[in-house]
Amino acid sequence: MFFKSDNGAGAAPEVMAALLRANEGYASSYGADEIMARVRSLLRTTFEAPEAAIYLVATGTAANALSLALYTQPWAATFAHESAHAALDECGAPEFYSGGAKVLPVAGDHGKMTPETLAAALSRNSHGDVHSVQRGALSITNVTEAGTVYTPAEVAALTTVAKAHGMACHLDGARFANALVATGATAAEMTWKAGIDVVSFGGTKNGCMGVEAVVIFDPAKAWEFELRRKRAGHLFSKHRFLSAQIEAYLTDDLWLRLAAHANSMGARLAQGLAQVPGVTLRHPVQANILFPEWPEGTHARAAAKGALYYPFPAPQGREAARLVASWSTTESDVDGLIQALR
Amino acid sequence: MFFKSDNGAGAAPEVMAALLRANEGYASSYGADEIMARVRSLLRTTFEAPEAAIYLVATGTAANALSLALYTQPWAATFAHESAHAALDECGAPEFYSGGAKVLPVAGDHGKMTPETLAAALSRNSHGDVHSVQRGALSITNVTEAGTVYTPAEVAALTTVAKAHGMACHLDGARFANALVATGATAAEMTWKAGIDVVSFGGTKNGCMGVEAVVIFDPAKAWEFELRRKRAGHLFSKHRFLSAQIEAYLTDDLWLRLAAHANSMGARLAQGLAQVPGVTLRHPVQANILFPEWPEGTHARAAAKGALYYPFPAPQGREAARLVASWSTTESDVDGLIQALR
Amino acid sequence: MFFKSDNGAGAAPEVMAALLRANEGYASSYGADEIMARVRSLLRTTFEAPEAAIYLVATGTAANALSLALYTQPWAATFAHESAHAALDECGAPEFYSGGAKVLPVAGDHGKMTPETLAAALSRNSHGDVHSVQRGALSITNVTEAGTVYTPAEVAALTTVAKAHGMACHLDGARFANALVATGATAAEMTWKAGIDVVSFGGTKNGCMGVEAVVIFDPAKAWEFELRRKRAGHLFSKHRFLSAQIEAYLTDDLWLRLAAHANSMGARLAQGLAQVPGVTLRHPVQANILFPEWPEGTHARAAAKGALYYPFPAPQGREAARLVASWSTTESDVDGLIQALR
Amino acid sequence: MFFKSDNGAGAAPEVMAALLRANEGYASSYGADEIMARVRSLLRTTFEAPEAAIYLVATGTAANALSLALYTQPWAATFAHESAHAALDECGAPEFYSGGAKVLPVAGDHGKMTPETLAAALSRNSHGDVHSVQRGALSITNVTEAGTVYTPAEVAALTTVAKAHGMACHLDGARFANALVATGATAAEMTWKAGIDVVSFGGTKNGCMGVEAVVIFDPAKAWEFELRRKRAGHLFSKHRFLSAQIEAYLTDDLWLRLAAHANSMGARLAQGLAQVPGVTLRHPVQANILFPEWPEGTHARAAAKGALYYPFPAPQGREAARLVASWSTTESDVDGLIQALR
Repeated sequence: MFFKSDNGAGAAPEVMAALLRANEGYASSYGADEIMARVRSLLRTTFEAPEAAIYLVATGTAANALSLALYTQPWAATFAHESAHAALDECGAPEFYSGGAKVLPVAGDHGKMTPETLAAALSRNSHGDVHSVQRGALSITNVTEAGTVYTPAEVAALTTVAKAHGMACHLDGARFANALVATGATAAEMTWKAGIDVVSFGGTKNGCMGVEAVVIFDPAKAWEFELRRKRAGHLFSKHRFLSAQIEAYLTDDLWLRLAAHANSMGARLAQGLAQVPGVTLRHPVQANILFPEWPEGTHARAAAKGALYYPFPAPQGREAARLVASWSTTESDVDGLIQALR
Repeated sequence: MFFKSDNGAGAAPEVMAALLRANEGYASSYGADEIMARVRSLLRTTFEAPEAAIYLVATGTAANALSLALYTQPWAATFAHESAHAALDECGAPEFYSGGAKVLPVAGDHGKMTPETLAAALSRNSHGDVHSVQRGALSITNVTEAGTVYTPAEVAALTTVAKAHGMACHLDGARFANALVATGATAAEMTWKAGIDVVSFGGTKNGCMGVEAVVIFDPAKAWEFELRRKRAGHLFSKHRFLSAQIEAYLTDDLWLRLAAHANSMGARLAQGLAQVPGVTLRHPVQANILFPEWPEGTHARAAAKGALYYPFPAPQGREAARLVASWSTTESDVDGLIQALR
Repeated sequence: MFFKSDNGAGAAPEVMAALLRANEGYASSYGADEIMARVRSLLRTTFEAPEAAIYLVATGTAANALSLALYTQPWAATFAHESAHAALDECGAPEFYSGGAKVLPVAGDHGKMTPETLAAALSRNSHGDVHSVQRGALSITNVTEAGTVYTPAEVAALTTVAKAHGMACHLDGARFANALVATGATAAEMTWKAGIDVVSFGGTKNGCMGVEAVVIFDPAKAWEFELRRKRAGHLFSKHRFLSAQIEAYLTDDLWLRLAAHANSMGARLAQGLAQVPGVTLRHPVQANILFPEWPEGTHARAAAKGALYYPFPAPQGREAARLVASWSTTESDVDGLIQALR
Repeated sequence: MFFKSDNGAGAAPEVMAALLRANEGYASSYGADEIMARVRSLLRTTFEAPEAAIYLVATGTAANALSLALYTQPWAATFAHESAHAALDECGAPEFYSGGAKVLPVAGDHGKMTPETLAAALSRNSHGDVHSVQRGALSITNVTEAGTVYTPAEVAALTTVAKAHGMACHLDGARFANALVATGATAAEMTWKAGIDVVSFGGTKNGCMGVEAVVIFDPAKAWEFELRRKRAGHLFSKHRFLSAQIEAYLTDDLWLRLAAHANSMGARLAQGLAQVPGVTLRHPVQANILFPEWPEGTHARAAAKGALYYPFPAPQGREAARLVASWSTTESDVDGLIQALR
């Protein structure tokens, strides 16, 4: 009963099989492998973006920080939700990669910015005044850190504000597939059709071993990205092993099937929790992450039954947790946890 | 007949098998996996360094740049051979990671610094003068970029000069196993017993998929390294897949066996080339990399037979090449190339 | 009637005279001038800190950013009031100088942090977790950006919290003399006796042409500061012209006399404003900066009489301003403004 | 008899008088002062560049590093003579300001690059290869660090090579006036007409107190420069005191008269040295800097007579020195030194 994070799961069998196949013989290194040529084509098709520049890196932090550095000058700021991973959980990676830009917080309930909260954050920044940092990029996490999901219309509402202020827009899609499944949107609808300029397209959390694609819709940015990636040590010599993961991930809709499973396990958890007396949810459950609160003593009971998850601070007399379902979560894991919580 | 680079080879079967095993079930992320605990122990034993801090990253550029940044302040310089990978082939990664330190060149035949050339380079730097950058670290590549090998005594002679000048010493061991096999030295003899403070212990080029260990002999540097690694996006969430590679690599001396094979294929290449009229070697052959020169027209003949390698600039009437043997090079590859060159 | 900023005033006659004297003959450059030796001694006496390292730079931004970089690692954060100059008005200088550290906001009424708001800000930062930036320095501005003043006891209360969390403490003293005059404290009482490690000791706003001293109480930090200053282009070749300003400034208590005058003009402004119907003050007036609000239409009336100051956003029907008195503000300037506002 | 450096001299009386005048009354801060408007116009006229962006900073290191950062991306290199101030004497300021770019050395006798040595340096850099840093800017120092002078034709020959390789061109004019006087060229001929994109126009060494202008011929770069300057703490609040220096410097050709005097003192030194037995000159004397060698024992004799200059390393039995004449060097200083050396 492992619900600590979707990065605690392994890789899907299809991905492992692809790695074994990719291991045959010799291959050109540093992204010139044949599998990468196919990956480029697959992702362009997936995103309906025939000109997009496509790159692979191994971690989400690298994908995000490299993407943001493309669009945030050292004397500028990335705007992101105050709970965004890029703001809180990357040990200052956006600052490092940009050469010292700021990440400025945007408020919003349930992990989501709104056009109003974004506009308010922008109005606190004295863009155009040389004494202030300037506007750089907007970064939207979808699925959010609160487990909620932006619809394409909500993304577009935010990028409309950003673009009216001359900013580029980044989507942190560490759980991109889960967001698509939750909304029924296509990859294009969720991104460039909604005003997104660059996407961190996550693979690791959803059944890969360690790979994220960066999809840049403006190919004029390609060479700068390549230099930044190399300089940061994120260009793999045996690159075929990144390519193979993403190829398998995109083949036969594996990525969407895995995410659909994880989301359905999230929904099953929500349904189960609704049956447990005294349990409340901090945020709406829209994908595979839940933030329940329950009476004191529940943690001990769940732990005794072998449930694993991260506890969260809670008001007196209560306990809180973050539960994450993944592609490998089983119905019996879910049901076992619910059983343990009763 | 693939001799372009040892990074064009795949991963050894033992490594792939270990990845499959590591994929079972759930694991703690970000380096807290159980395999990593064993890797830490294995590497400490290998290096006879029970207190060493041990970390894994996926690329050699990351291992080198993170290691050098530990010991080179932004206003200092790393000293390295003028042909060093860190100086020429990492797109400025040491500068990026250090926050703008310099990499200053040290001369030396056949890719090797000497105490005299190092002292000369140090004397050109006005350490102690506020107008000049200060002395930072020494970085020694072993096996060198010229395919030659430093003995432990040669390493110690260099670190003695460096330490007399207050500098820390880094060993870029992208081909560390090949250097050990070539010299018969132990890991400890080649490193801390010879004055090395931090090692990039390469796995990728010698049969892994993508993993390098950083071995820091002073554990007081551990936490800073962890923060730098995270901030750079080099901390893997599904870290077990890095750990599993190194565990397999160190088990039953796989790393030394693979390197011994690569070196013996290098020697076989050298013997074969000695039989080919008109072929000369730019550098002594001591490991798995060779730099032959031969008469004009040879490239075309070799290519027609399917030989793959990187051409190098050569004097008029001559052609030059870099040939790299790897763990997966076969005797028939070698013999086929020699045949093609005749 | 100039109340835009104390940096709109010129230099005091004593300072100009000192510059003329300093211009005689030749002098050693880069801080080795004889005047600097005397300045070092004067500042050490002023601060009762015989071991302090003393440096001069020409701008407050340089003094602050260089000081903070000494104590905030790239992966750490400086904590400062949310309205602090270092946070809002230096175009990211602390981020640039530190190599990408964060400046994290601390709340507090009237521009002042309290131990409680500082503790709350610290508790939002996951120090010790590798995914989060770490604690760096605390930066206290005194006189604050709201024109209020911390007493030495208030400074000590903040540094006590900071030091309990392992942080160093910086005092942004762009208006240090005004703060001393306002509280009656000595330089030592306001700084190291209250837990401050490094001070930006302002001269420019209070009658100098362009000079700030950095006073570092731990001399072990001296050489790093010198290298950072040089590397940033803030080491003056004709350094005697910085030294001469500070020497004059410290001679015969000029600095305290000028600040006393500015503060008394601030008090006179406050008394005058209290007589003007409809005027309120946003913050207590404790030094030389005032933030009045008044009825709509007042700006136009004041401007017609030649009053110069910065307008501020205000609620409907109201107007707001920032008024700053300086060493050169006259009683007739103050009285003229009050007259104009009626 | 002070010949240590032209930065050991004070400021010219005209400059001091201008500072006193500028000190009257209040002025807008941060570059919005009225004097700056006139300076902008004067420099545009001087450079025959009506669109040029004009900024003032207080040090040459700041002028150079800010200028180079405009044209050298973090993953690129500035090419400069191997003895260039930007390469050796700024403690890594170009690296700091650019975010980690390299400064790559170009050879050349007597401190001067040639098109051939520049082309050779460029050919050693693998521009276009992602593993290598890319080409950034060319930086030419004129007067050179060896005291020699490039003619406009020589500058143009270098910039032609640079521009053919897609690089921008910077002129480090710490002694710009001396170079113009030496060659008879106009400011325009020495700069944009010869392919220069940005100039560090020195004032400090030639009779100012501490001010350098940056002249950027492409006004599209203006805003980025302003942000970089502010962020680095080089935007002066009491900016009028920088403006006033440059205004006086440009008025009635003061800058050219002072440089003409310094150069003529350099020539007088050369003539005098030619009369002293056993003295040789390392470099041609073309401006105000000389590098004589003389027999052992001469230093002691000169010092006994009160001569001040920097000694340089020399072959056995010889001594070497750097002598710098300035706007304030007198004929009797020169003659006294020659007398002392005999």
